[in-house]
Amino acid sequence: MEQELIERFRKIVGAVHAITDQDFIAPYLLEERGLFHGKTPLLLRPASTVEVSSIMQLASQTRTPIVPQGGNTGLVGGQQPDKNECSVLLSMERLNKIRCINLEGNFAVVEAGVILQTLQKKIDEAGRFFPLSLASEGSCQIGGNLSSNAGGTAVLAYGNMRELCLGLEVVLPDGRILEDLCFVKKNNSGYDLKNLFIGAEGTLGVITAAVLKLFPKIKGRAVAFVGLHSPVKALEFLSLAQCHGGGMLTSFELMGKLSLQMALKYKMCERHLFEHEHEWYVLLNISSLQGNGEALSVLSTILEQSLKEAVIEDAIIAQSLKQQDFFWQLRESISHAQKLAGGSIKHDIAVPLASIPDFIAEAALIVEDIAPGARVVCFGHMGDGNLHYNVTQPVESDTATFLQLWSPMNHRIHDLVMHYQGAFSAEHGIGQLKREELRTFKSPVALDIMQKIKKTLDPLGIMNPGKIL
Amino acid sequence: MEQELIERFRKIVGAVHAITDQDFIAPYLLEERGLFHGKTPLLLRPASTVEVSSIMQLASQTRTPIVPQGGNTGLVGGQQPDKNECSVLLSMERLNKIRCINLEGNFAVVEAGVILQTLQKKIDEAGRFFPLSLASEGSCQIGGNLSSNAGGTAVLAYGNMRELCLGLEVVLPDGRILEDLCFVKKNNSGYDLKNLFIGAEGTLGVITAAVLKLFPKIKGRAVAFVGLHSPVKALEFLSLAQCHGGGMLTSFELMGKLSLQMALKYKMCERHLFEHEHEWYVLLNISSLQGNGEALSVLSTILEQSLKEAVIEDAIIAQSLKQQDFFWQLRESISHAQKLAGGSIKHDIAVPLASIPDFIAEAALIVEDIAPGARVVCFGHMGDGNLHYNVTQPVESDTATFLQLWSPMNHRIHDLVMHYQGAFSAEHGIGQLKREELRTFKSPVALDIMQKIKKTLDPLGIMNPGKIL
Repeated sequence: MEQELIERFRKIVGAVHAITDQDFIAPYLLEERGLFHGKTPLLLRPASTVEVSSIMQLASQTRTPIVPQGGNTGLVGGQQPDKNECSVLLSMERLNKIRCINLEGNFAVVEAGVILQTLQKKIDEAGRFFPLSLASEGSCQIGGNLSSNAGGTAVLAYGNMRELCLGLEVVLPDGRILEDLCFVKKNNSGYDLKNLFIGAEGTLGVITAAVLKLFPKIKGRAVAFVGLHSPVKALEFLSLAQCHGGGMLTSFELMGKLSLQMALKYKMCERHLFEHEHEWYVLLNISSLQGNGEALSVLSTILEQSLKEAVIEDAIIAQSLKQQDFFWQLRESISHAQKLAGGSIKHDIAVPLASIPDFIAEAALIVEDIAPGARVVCFGHMGDGNLHYNVTQPVESDTATFLQLWSPMNHRIHDLVMHYQGAFSAEHGIGQLKREELRTFKSPVALDIMQKIKKTLDPLGIMNPGKIL
Repeated sequence: MEQELIERFRKIVGAVHAITDQDFIAPYLLEERGLFHGKTPLLLRPASTVEVSSIMQLASQTRTPIVPQGGNTGLVGGQQPDKNECSVLLSMERLNKIRCINLEGNFAVVEAGVILQTLQKKIDEAGRFFPLSLASEGSCQIGGNLSSNAGGTAVLAYGNMRELCLGLEVVLPDGRILEDLCFVKKNNSGYDLKNLFIGAEGTLGVITAAVLKLFPKIKGRAVAFVGLHSPVKALEFLSLAQCHGGGMLTSFELMGKLSLQMALKYKMCERHLFEHEHEWYVLLNISSLQGNGEALSVLSTILEQSLKEAVIEDAIIAQSLKQQDFFWQLRESISHAQKLAGGSIKHDIAVPLASIPDFIAEAALIVEDIAPGARVVCFGHMGDGNLHYNVTQPVESDTATFLQLWSPMNHRIHDLVMHYQGAFSAEHGIGQLKREELRTFKSPVALDIMQKIKKTLDPLGIMNPGKIL
């Protein structure tokens, strides 16, 4: 990249925030799973929507590719530049203001660079609840959550990020600002532009701010770890829990035996949670607007009836806040725990609920066929049909050799997912990782419309190129 | 329209369902409020997605404008052809199959022509709940509900039609079929195409089927009519009801004094509901998955505390299913009741909740300024910030003269709505009625994107021309 162009970008954000020092840039190019190793000559850290707009104007004048980045926690490489060293990395971290919290209207206007956990805390202090919750909440940012339509553990009751957003402010690839900061739930005035940018992984524009929905504060919570025999039983249990709990059932997380074993080992627990091991486990969360009493009462009803009908085998109700947190830490640590056991081939998929038992049974055969001895670590947000179907290398095998099976394994598992009319990317998106899968599994008509929309909104192709399409 | 072209369309749907008899066509061209008087040489009633596809192929080959129509209950003329007699009217009524109801996955696949009330009943019989509910549910169709992103009385807890839809099947203007019948809640595989077609009022394609979300069956309901002093108090009451009721508060409908008076007269009630009249009323609905006991208990708590804190003045809890229905009939009959009192100028608007009291006060001044003596009939889904701010002609005035004030009145009221950053069309859409308002109030950037999307998906401009844009 020519020095003169770097200088022009530098003038927009100021010298301190136009960074070419590669040591400084390095952490922005580190990608969690180590799958992507991008390069950039320039990192820009604008502090306002107007600065982002100026950056995009200059980028479109000079046809400079721009890669927006939030907390850099994405799992498909959407926030990473390619290796060509011609893309500018645009960190949104300094657009980190909560512009307003409106209690009566139950919304907040939040800039893209606000960290999710910060937002959760500020909203809690204000007397409301923002439900989005995921493992990386300590570092992921709202802009990234929107661009990837983040899911997580509270989708069952509150929906994905898409459902939590009322309106957006977006800088278009040509630098124009789309003001669509809608403050009301009902607004039928023309095409829904907001949802085009949500989940578009920064390929159609840069989200700079959003109006997010707030909810009444949760006053009580009850959490249980449940052991049960099979995915079929888990499905029955979910149905029973939903019929009794309705919207109070805010999480329903499935874990296979091996997932919990790994998590316990990672947390250095010497004793197992349960007296006897079970084939499958469910972590469920009941939330109440009234208090702990109501939450516990609903949870107890669900568990009693499930035990009576032999839907579940055993259950432990968390006896303290500390134990509730510990149960959740076990669930959240599975991905980290897996790393200790070697390399993993991952699938973030969704299957219609009724097909989950068949899917799990058939997927196991595929794994055994492709990589005999490989260990299935199957867990996820079963309430949403969303499984993280991860496969860890066989004990004492070679990691590199095993990881060469990533593509063929992905392809056959995704094939099975599509056979059941599910989603080959449930919550992580496409990024760089699943572009080939998108071309394979998406209908040609849908792909054609997507390409045309990309061409319409980003005719120069400068907006996060090489992602999704 | 040339006879030869009519014959070609006739071959697709069969002679019986390609209708040129204007007497037969007449009811399809009747529009509820009498604002639009369109004409068409040909009504087509296809029975399948493939037939719709063939129709659109022929339409694009011959550049024939197509106007899709559901139950013909739209209030902005979106489902009506213009007067030029060159558009073919495409009734979706024969695509009326519920393709499947999946209980474990909590979804149903429903064709566009299914009547909303029919769907509600079938889902209820199957042991689940489909929450969309609106005054025209006895004749409106799912395709129209989707194309207009219908709202209604249950949006507070369940969302608009947009939030109730998992996926779509759409015939594009060129006849290609977009299969996007997603069965899972989490699916981040590329741009969100579904939401482009929802709310697009048939201008981007013809929705032929949809995957709709189902919910656990409501086991109990409690309904109260509440009298209170002012919109400020109504706002306090809403906040209190939400904090106690959460997701169990499924409707919160505001009505001005005059709205209820008119409804009572229309229903020929000799006695007023309340001992003393109040300035404002709220009809609220508490739904329970457990039963009537829980619903009543939550409702009682809300009412007791509101009375104690002097938030409300009086409350009547419906004592029977019959009384519950009667309360709702009063609410639903306001529009009809208004007709008896003369001509009305209507506004379907949304205002951020905190601004509703100020909006109502200031709007009254505008009305008095433009049409002294005109009667404000203000009611609506206050829980969503959505008001039907209707203005009935002064007593014993001339209707035609009054209705000439439609545009200037609309314009100033909408101006005020936009001042409060609300929506000048909350749930009815743009259609033909609000095109001018869209051009006035929508941001130029948003309008530009909308126009480009229209051009991209419907380059020939044959898909419901003259609507929205």
